[in-house]
Amino acid sequence: MVTTMRSLHLALLIGVLMSLGLSQPKNQKTSVTLSDETQACIDCHRGVTPGIVEDWLTSRHAQTTPAEALKKTAFERRISNEAVPDGLRPVAVGCYECHSQHPADHRDNFDHFGYRINVVVSPNDCATCHRTEADQYADGKKAHAYGNLEDNAVYQTLVRVIDGVKRVDGMKVHGLDPTPTTKHETCYACHGTKVGVEGMMTMTTSLGDIEVPKLTNWPNQGVGRVNPDGSLGACTACHPRHSFSIAVARKPFTCAQCHLEPDVPAWDIYRESKHGNIILSQEGQQHWDAVPWKIGTDLRAPTCATCHSSLLVSPDGDVRAERTHNFSARLWTRIFGLIYSHPQPKSGNTAILRNADGLPLPTTFGGQHAADGLIGAEEQAHRKDAMTHVCQGCHSSAVTEGYFGKFAQTSAEADSMVLAATNLVRYAWEKKIADPANPFDEMIEQLWVKEWLFYANSVRYASAMSGPDYASFENGWWELSHTLEEMRELLERHGAEEK
Amino acid sequence: MVTTMRSLHLALLIGVLMSLGLSQPKNQKTSVTLSDETQACIDCHRGVTPGIVEDWLTSRHAQTTPAEALKKTAFERRISNEAVPDGLRPVAVGCYECHSQHPADHRDNFDHFGYRINVVVSPNDCATCHRTEADQYADGKKAHAYGNLEDNAVYQTLVRVIDGVKRVDGMKVHGLDPTPTTKHETCYACHGTKVGVEGMMTMTTSLGDIEVPKLTNWPNQGVGRVNPDGSLGACTACHPRHSFSIAVARKPFTCAQCHLEPDVPAWDIYRESKHGNIILSQEGQQHWDAVPWKIGTDLRAPTCATCHSSLLVSPDGDVRAERTHNFSARLWTRIFGLIYSHPQPKSGNTAILRNADGLPLPTTFGGQHAADGLIGAEEQAHRKDAMTHVCQGCHSSAVTEGYFGKFAQTSAEADSMVLAATNLVRYAWEKKIADPANPFDEMIEQLWVKEWLFYANSVRYASAMSGPDYASFENGWWELSHTLEEMRELLERHGAEEK
Amino acid sequence: MVTTMRSLHLALLIGVLMSLGLSQPKNQKTSVTLSDETQACIDCHRGVTPGIVEDWLTSRHAQTTPAEALKKTAFERRISNEAVPDGLRPVAVGCYECHSQHPADHRDNFDHFGYRINVVVSPNDCATCHRTEADQYADGKKAHAYGNLEDNAVYQTLVRVIDGVKRVDGMKVHGLDPTPTTKHETCYACHGTKVGVEGMMTMTTSLGDIEVPKLTNWPNQGVGRVNPDGSLGACTACHPRHSFSIAVARKPFTCAQCHLEPDVPAWDIYRESKHGNIILSQEGQQHWDAVPWKIGTDLRAPTCATCHSSLLVSPDGDVRAERTHNFSARLWTRIFGLIYSHPQPKSGNTAILRNADGLPLPTTFGGQHAADGLIGAEEQAHRKDAMTHVCQGCHSSAVTEGYFGKFAQTSAEADSMVLAATNLVRYAWEKKIADPANPFDEMIEQLWVKEWLFYANSVRYASAMSGPDYASFENGWWELSHTLEEMRELLERHGAEEK
Repeated sequence: MVTTMRSLHLALLIGVLMSLGLSQPKNQKTSVTLSDETQACIDCHRGVTPGIVEDWLTSRHAQTTPAEALKKTAFERRISNEAVPDGLRPVAVGCYECHSQHPADHRDNFDHFGYRINVVVSPNDCATCHRTEADQYADGKKAHAYGNLEDNAVYQTLVRVIDGVKRVDGMKVHGLDPTPTTKHETCYACHGTKVGVEGMMTMTTSLGDIEVPKLTNWPNQGVGRVNPDGSLGACTACHPRHSFSIAVARKPFTCAQCHLEPDVPAWDIYRESKHGNIILSQEGQQHWDAVPWKIGTDLRAPTCATCHSSLLVSPDGDVRAERTHNFSARLWTRIFGLIYSHPQPKSGNTAILRNADGLPLPTTFGGQHAADGLIGAEEQAHRKDAMTHVCQGCHSSAVTEGYFGKFAQTSAEADSMVLAATNLVRYAWEKKIADPANPFDEMIEQLWVKEWLFYANSVRYASAMSGPDYASFENGWWELSHTLEEMRELLERHGAEEK
Repeated sequence: MVTTMRSLHLALLIGVLMSLGLSQPKNQKTSVTLSDETQACIDCHRGVTPGIVEDWLTSRHAQTTPAEALKKTAFERRISNEAVPDGLRPVAVGCYECHSQHPADHRDNFDHFGYRINVVVSPNDCATCHRTEADQYADGKKAHAYGNLEDNAVYQTLVRVIDGVKRVDGMKVHGLDPTPTTKHETCYACHGTKVGVEGMMTMTTSLGDIEVPKLTNWPNQGVGRVNPDGSLGACTACHPRHSFSIAVARKPFTCAQCHLEPDVPAWDIYRESKHGNIILSQEGQQHWDAVPWKIGTDLRAPTCATCHSSLLVSPDGDVRAERTHNFSARLWTRIFGLIYSHPQPKSGNTAILRNADGLPLPTTFGGQHAADGLIGAEEQAHRKDAMTHVCQGCHSSAVTEGYFGKFAQTSAEADSMVLAATNLVRYAWEKKIADPANPFDEMIEQLWVKEWLFYANSVRYASAMSGPDYASFENGWWELSHTLEEMRELLERHGAEEK
Repeated sequence: MVTTMRSLHLALLIGVLMSLGLSQPKNQKTSVTLSDETQACIDCHRGVTPGIVEDWLTSRHAQTTPAEALKKTAFERRISNEAVPDGLRPVAVGCYECHSQHPADHRDNFDHFGYRINVVVSPNDCATCHRTEADQYADGKKAHAYGNLEDNAVYQTLVRVIDGVKRVDGMKVHGLDPTPTTKHETCYACHGTKVGVEGMMTMTTSLGDIEVPKLTNWPNQGVGRVNPDGSLGACTACHPRHSFSIAVARKPFTCAQCHLEPDVPAWDIYRESKHGNIILSQEGQQHWDAVPWKIGTDLRAPTCATCHSSLLVSPDGDVRAERTHNFSARLWTRIFGLIYSHPQPKSGNTAILRNADGLPLPTTFGGQHAADGLIGAEEQAHRKDAMTHVCQGCHSSAVTEGYFGKFAQTSAEADSMVLAATNLVRYAWEKKIADPANPFDEMIEQLWVKEWLFYANSVRYASAMSGPDYASFENGWWELSHTLEEMRELLERHGAEEK
């Protein structure tokens, strides 16, 4: 049965369907009117790719219209624009409504059975209704995650050491350049790829041969994806297709796609924290879909979204935190990246940072802040205040002050451990035991990388989110101290003299 | 109260129960008729081991009869046989129905209060109603997982290095043979044990002393268990006793019993994939029990079972994938095992493979395929096509073609990294730095094992299922490259000269 | 809106609220009478910290009174005291009821708007209604977890090696003393901190400046927390504030806050066990809140609480296990701690143990038991019997006997592997390759620590709870054997001669 329809000529099929009246709005699971174009999409795709059609039917997009959405109060509204183009107002937000926006901007726009379709839906397309979210997102580091990696020479040196295939000749190891494929599957899977369009190609499908754009580095839902319309980001990183659910975005499993040990162990630590304990144990008793999100009545403990993004109100309707899609808006210090903790960068574009040594890093190897590019004390206080208001939905001032004091001290101690490791590497460089030309490719250098990229990060995250295992034995202080001893022992083994 | 019944003579007890009419069908939670034998089982076991009785009462086996099951349409049917023995048709599939099949074949059959009972229920017993599934399963690698390990001399060398207790004399380490216990708790826990019967033994129970078969390597639910009736496998590996739920088998937590990092990180990668993100976030909104499984309406994203086993239909009833219990039926390439990726073996029995060096492996240490034993291009294309149909329930042809192309290249790159590591080991062997007599017991050899058994596997799995952390820092490219540097540094430390 | 109330003088505000009659019992989500004091707490805190008020409203404490609770049958009762003080009987167990107990004992008691409030609620406070649980808990190791670490000189040496910041001079590494902050975030996060009171401090809050006690090492919910009233423990470790749910305590996510790999991999192994498979797949079908907990009807497979704590009955009401809050009550052997497995200690206070070398350890470095402090054969049999009754809710005697036999042998084999590693360290000490003055700070010593603290523990836990990955490649036998080879190779590298 899989192939029964293959021999039918597609245009004929569509004609037949239309003559049968099947292109009239027919949406068994919603009473909302569909546009003719969306109905045409569905008429074919419910047979071809039924999964995405059915998934969309479960979405809010299928169950309401922008016109209805605009009637809600400001707090309850899930649509940030005050106005929506007239043509979109009375119909469900369907296939065509999203995949047809700004066709002139889209290098991936193509003719699909008479309709002009974009393959990729970009944040700029979503901004037709969700402009505030798109703008906030564009300001943050996530939107710039591709360039922040691709355009940073220091990071690229590390990517090359890690991702390049090696050839062995005798006992010599030669590293090749990483392929686009491997970069796509590793760093850029989360950071986002640059989606290119290389003309058209012919695909043989169950409905016959069709011409479609040949995209490179696709599919990808990385947070900083460079889209064929030039916009940055992928809303589907957190609101996966085609239900685009706010509930999914609020669950910790979503952030857990990328924020994982060993380098960014946010999910791993959340899971073992008291907050994670409560949510994982009572997941079924939270109201994941409520807007606004009411502290206590809708959720008993925070998830990632609660602290970093969501609009939070008290049961009486007092705003505790404004919604933001700039996920640094409530963060004053940055606890990972090269090499020490430091104030958040001013711009989401971190490739423009320059430290005192001229490198595109927020600190020097010794820990000195690239202060020009980092937020100052006032902005730090402002952001810390925003986060504090979230915490104080449940916790007293005494608790939050003590908590953040502890976090500051732990970050400083982790930085001290990184400095100790850095000093051992510098000693190796000075004594010609290692070559600083590439600071990431030799054994002692890679142990140093583990110190800051894995273990110091884990200790800081464990403090920020209260996950004691990641502060202790699981990539925490045990590893920080043990790896330092490993570095020292390696120096000793190389016959380096102690001063 | 625990012991209040102990002093009663058991036969007397059963007599009393019978005289009270308690052996008449009495199943508070099902209106289905029970056989007299099953009722007798329940009358005692609801007091002795209530957990399994209550669990069974939640099962479909307790809620229907084969006669009713056979009335369903072919798609809806959960029973593959066209006919079921007359005696079994009108009653629930209860304790006795399963534990009494083919008594002559069962070395574990024994007299239990007048009933002939098999301790172990085997796939051949389940085949009384589920023959197609049993036959498919018997053809696959899972059914042969015991022999594939036990009868492979190369693997046994590795098992001995890992699992044997060591004694230290000065600084010399002597490895002993692994005990059956430790083999049972490690490799064979998942691969399956060979369940033996060593006569009878007397057990003191809450109902008095009873005689039961003395089984060895039991209990075990490994996928390739060798049963006392000679059959291979354990349906309970995925359909755990005594609810035998299809819903459980479809959840990723089931495969996560064995398919785990570092060697087979399927669960770990699924969890961080987009598919896992959707399912873990919306677990409560899927229809886990539906047969057939409808794409989109029943499930919004795939689990392990979706891609590798289940009967999938579109909402309109078109079959996208036939049900299979040969879990390689939709797999064309094998991404783990010794040492490189390779086409799937022709037979589920892989101990019969011979590479060009005469070893029972699918490739040589250098990567040459043991082509005679592996499926050819046509069969590979057929299986890839089967998987493609699953993917295309949601994804376009352009996406699936690009996806599998990426996977092929990544597998090749991971193989190149393994070859680099292999060449360093060969250099060590050549320079007498290590002894190839046992290729797994010295430091540089074990680093090499980590390269292919942990890291190259992770990279390939991460590509197959889109889990970027396992492609990157968590056992991925970072470890592939870092461990290669560790091997090189170890050679340097041993004073090996560079050519 | 966040700051709109800030300028109001607090006393005035409360006066206004009172004059409006808002201090009259007003509990929208419960018909239970609140005390005037609790109502006053809620009147302010529903605005200030709404999360904890709403969370409490979901609790049983908010939905019933001690008077009602005492009417239940012994099995169904969740309150162990036969009598409760008269004043507490007719009202909900609210803020004031818990935070006002035994004020004279509480160094953290302070005047809060005219009410005497304890910041910390201790097990001794909960004992007003739950005395049996508090007493059982006080007897166990958890209650003593702070002192068991803090007062043990051997453990403190290890804590110092791990948790102290290091300074590097040339290639010399100097370890500093760990700070209270880092100890709080690592070991003592789970073990519990000693909560001190250093006078009062002024906090600026949304309601104005208030005076509150200045607590040190707070907040903390470690199991052995030393409270400001001198009592030991934190009920909130497992029954988190402010719902204090028995359902949460019964879920494995709760124990997973602390019982984690690599040192205590209980959660990790449970998750991959058959028991974990069943529970994680059918979490929604268990009755998490039922008291007593009925085997089979309420739960189909055990969680941590089932085996180690809960009152379990058969569906017919036969007791299979008595409730205990001494989590060693069903444990005969201890499978972690320094350095070998051993019988459980007699006292929850393990700092009083002395081995044959005079160290505060349950065994010598060579494995000899500190028998005086450990339970004898009779008590071991008694506890094993208690656990066996739990298992036999589902499993036969033959299975449980075989199972525990396997566990005993595996523990012995893991101990043998630790002895092998210990002998290599002793050899290093003897040959002056390492210095035994501090047995934890040098490379070979730290590899030895990993052998017993991570890998031998994992193998024993994997046996106890049937998680084969942790017996095999994930911190199991692979690592036990590989790390031993790493130790041997390190000795060889240092030029140690083989005898």
